Amino acid sequence: MKGLPLSKVYQLLEPGPVVLLTTAHKGHANIMAMSWHMMVEFEPPLIACVVSNANYSFAALRATKECVIAIPALELAPKVVGVGNCSGREMDKFKRFRLTPAPANRVAPPLVAECFANLECKVVDTRLVNEFNLFVLEVLKAWTDPAQKHPKTFHHHGYGRFAVDGEMIKLKSRKR
Amino acid sequence: MKGLPLSKVYQLLEPGPVVLLTTAHKGHANIMAMSWHMMVEFEPPLIACVVSNANYSFAALRATKECVIAIPALELAPKVVGVGNCSGREMDKFKRFRLTPAPANRVAPPLVAECFANLECKVVDTRLVNEFNLFVLEVLKAWTDPAQKHPKTFHHHGYGRFAVDGEMIKLKSRKR
Repeated sequence: MKGLPLSKVYQLLEPGPVVLLTTAHKGHANIMAMSWHMMVEFEPPLIACVVSNANYSFAALRATKECVIAIPALELAPKVVGVGNCSGREMDKFKRFRLTPAPANRVAPPLVAECFANLECKVVDTRLVNEFNLFVLEVLKAWTDPAQKHPKTFHHHGYGRFAVDGEMIKLKSRKR
Repeated sequence: MKGLPLSKVYQLLEPGPVVLLTTAHKGHANIMAMSWHMMVEFEPPLIACVVSNANYSFAALRATKECVIAIPALELAPKVVGVGNCSGREMDKFKRFRLTPAPANRVAPPLVAECFANLECKVVDTRLVNEFNLFVLEVLKAWTDPAQKHPKTFHHHGYGRFAVDGEMIKLKSRKR
């Protein structure tokens, strides 16, 4: 894994990929699938996300205020859907889906070694947690895997239907 | 335009497409491009989005608490980037880009007739506006254009690079 400048983090999340979110609580690391996230600021990168209070990860995120957002490429889609179909209450999902936890630099939750990017995050705002389960995160450290060239992400359309990244187009834009 | 059940709105926004946002303030309708949005609740559909206070639309959204989120298909990408490259302070962007404002049902801002989906929204939470420019919206009414079959959306990767929807895959999911 190679460090990624924080100023480039938005380019990973702005397109709306399905991601994984890891937490660690009382010695137990867990992992969930997530599509409800967005960028809030470029630098330092701020991200908002919704983690349902029905998810096992919710209590861990609220208590520890730390997580990792890991971005999987298409090849991991079956494992990501598997992760989304079960609960960390009942099993160790890293073991069940043969995903490799790797130590993070700034937070306790693990990176996911198989993912092409990993973002170490701390919770910076909880005002909308009680009403909307909405957390605001700051990215402290970002990693990409140089071995994964041109990873294709996938985007959830509901009920297990996903659009995979297709053609890349370039249009003259004055905006970053 | 045909009404879309509110329970299906998340399937449009969850994949992270570039969208347009319209506002109307003091008799002046405006339109901006936006990628920083996410679903917050299925039904009634709640959406969070970031509208920078540097954008002309910010004051209109904060004052009127109404907007329309319109979702363009690939064919509109050049116009969408054009909309993103200029400001409503200086011109009527509907005229400049030959986009057609159409009356909405529940809000004052117009639909964008060329878009394959339009969501009429009101602002329901402003607690994070001052610090993060983050609005929470409720979708009051949703429309789709039955004439646009299988529209491809596009996803911003920064500096005018966009990934267009590619292959659709289906995986066995227990989640909606």
